[in-house]
Amino acid sequence: MTLPRRVEPELRKDPVLGRWVIIAGERSQRPNPFRRYPTAVGGGEPCPFCPGHEAMTPKEVLLYAGGAGGADGWKVRVVPNLFPALRIEGSHDKRGEGLYDMMRGIGAHEVVIETPRHDEVPAAFPREQMAEVIRAWRERMIDLLRDTRFQYVLIFKNHGSAAGASLDHAHSQIIALPVTPARIEMELMGTGRYYDYRGRCIYCDILTQELADARRLVAQNADFVAFAPFASRFPFEVTILPRRHEPFFQTLTPALTTTLAEILIDVLRRYRLALNDPPYNVVVHTAPPGYAQPDRYHWQVEVLPKLTEAAGFEWGSGFFINPTPPEEAARALRDLERVMDVPDGHLLPEPAR
Amino acid sequence: MTLPRRVEPELRKDPVLGRWVIIAGERSQRPNPFRRYPTAVGGGEPCPFCPGHEAMTPKEVLLYAGGAGGADGWKVRVVPNLFPALRIEGSHDKRGEGLYDMMRGIGAHEVVIETPRHDEVPAAFPREQMAEVIRAWRERMIDLLRDTRFQYVLIFKNHGSAAGASLDHAHSQIIALPVTPARIEMELMGTGRYYDYRGRCIYCDILTQELADARRLVAQNADFVAFAPFASRFPFEVTILPRRHEPFFQTLTPALTTTLAEILIDVLRRYRLALNDPPYNVVVHTAPPGYAQPDRYHWQVEVLPKLTEAAGFEWGSGFFINPTPPEEAARALRDLERVMDVPDGHLLPEPAR
Repeated sequence: MTLPRRVEPELRKDPVLGRWVIIAGERSQRPNPFRRYPTAVGGGEPCPFCPGHEAMTPKEVLLYAGGAGGADGWKVRVVPNLFPALRIEGSHDKRGEGLYDMMRGIGAHEVVIETPRHDEVPAAFPREQMAEVIRAWRERMIDLLRDTRFQYVLIFKNHGSAAGASLDHAHSQIIALPVTPARIEMELMGTGRYYDYRGRCIYCDILTQELADARRLVAQNADFVAFAPFASRFPFEVTILPRRHEPFFQTLTPALTTTLAEILIDVLRRYRLALNDPPYNVVVHTAPPGYAQPDRYHWQVEVLPKLTEAAGFEWGSGFFINPTPPEEAARALRDLERVMDVPDGHLLPEPAR
Repeated sequence: MTLPRRVEPELRKDPVLGRWVIIAGERSQRPNPFRRYPTAVGGGEPCPFCPGHEAMTPKEVLLYAGGAGGADGWKVRVVPNLFPALRIEGSHDKRGEGLYDMMRGIGAHEVVIETPRHDEVPAAFPREQMAEVIRAWRERMIDLLRDTRFQYVLIFKNHGSAAGASLDHAHSQIIALPVTPARIEMELMGTGRYYDYRGRCIYCDILTQELADARRLVAQNADFVAFAPFASRFPFEVTILPRRHEPFFQTLTPALTTTLAEILIDVLRRYRLALNDPPYNVVVHTAPPGYAQPDRYHWQVEVLPKLTEAAGFEWGSGFFINPTPPEEAARALRDLERVMDVPDGHLLPEPAR
């Protein structure tokens, strides 16, 4: 029996598909196959995200004061993940191993604690609270991109254990990566192809068409349009597109931070009312920091409810079967009445179980 | 209130990523968001796959006689899916809608009933039974590819409800598609890039390296090698590669059918013993039928256990965090003793629950 050894996280490149995967470090020689990668700080009995338990997390890298949290009160806290998928120290140390490519798992992994209130779900956030969360995403993204080792900052949220959340207390995550995710590379290729042919941003054209067509619209306000994508992979998938062409999420103004908060809460409330409080993921899509062709990309937010377990063979084939036409999903979400007609944050009717 | 209308399945192309999605038809105006796409025939109380219930499924397109099933006995039956994701009749009718591309959902969707015995899991199949299943896959693939409307035949298996199976009785599925899945296109691009540079099949080189390295090996026999891929996206992912370069699955000989059955059962038994009978997916990867550069592709079988729910944001980002290094997964699977040392099909020790 040897002692447990410390394995550093590694980035490995799929030699055929070219995509990078984080192979997280292990503390033990015995892998636990059912271990979920901790998507949050801590995991003891008392909630480490609640006010008064600040000592259970690493020291915050960002704090917005003034809320109900802690001795002095806070609205949003951002802390390093106690079990980071990537490590902040060191250089990439890119190297090969025969035909394989790898590098050290350099990066940052932070957790955004979105509210001091343990039981407050994002669908019930006051608009101002969600705006503070989005402001924290942006502020951390800008700060992390100062580190030239990082090529991309991924902002995402897992809500509900079936969507990968390991703690109930509302939180999102920020991962700074030394590589650009393959999905973003593919989006840049696709938008570039369209631009080369038409000379326009494809997402601007999609926006025009969706607004004219209207069958897939879910919600809109002065700055954003939420719709069910034409080729949705999953039932009730929603894309939130800014009306104004802009490749970089981090250019978000205070005014747009508020309207984005508004439409995101709107979509989440529609899910809660129509779909019985489903688990879901939120992912911010933005151009890589140095992207030199800003006419071609259009940042956006993708919202994916996790309604079934049926996403099985899709991982292997890349092929998707969506049982719910996006027009029907959009209509079901759109037709809800009085979605926003509740006092800020208090409270939606409890969905039937 | 209008009457329920019949919506034909449609293939829609993601305008940015270029991948096609099946948007399945609906019978009702009211979408049921929690509806799993039926991955099997029927769904009533008595199992439609059991002997004596043959009338509950459409008439078989293939039957291997001689087993315990039905009046005359059968070993394997292949039947059209009662709720097909695609329809066999008609032409593609490719068309645009503004900047979107779509076509009618032409294709075939069949179910392979792998055994007449309701409770027999594939890990416990006798080798001969699994060989019959693989023979049926191949025979159906060859037959479906005679239809020139089809560009690709996807063979896959969902085991366990968390992996997408809607019935317990062991079965796999065959989908004939009018397009090549994006994943396969990407594999062809990646293998082509390597071939252009090195003049060799990348999978042949991977095989050589994995055999020499040995840390990621799981099992092998005269014709196949099973290993945990270097950049595994999921814990305990396994690739089964034929030792001999061959781009097309459908060229499988009777001898290789037997050895493939053997190694597939071997891997599934290792899962059952090491991972407590996990849900899993099996996907066959093969070159599209007309692929004119056979030196560049190498067919293979991918096996993906579904061990956690944590695959959330990956759908949006395309970025994966794998908590279990493939070397540790391979060691855990490899180190099992007496995996194959049980009388054919009867029976592994019940995994602890």
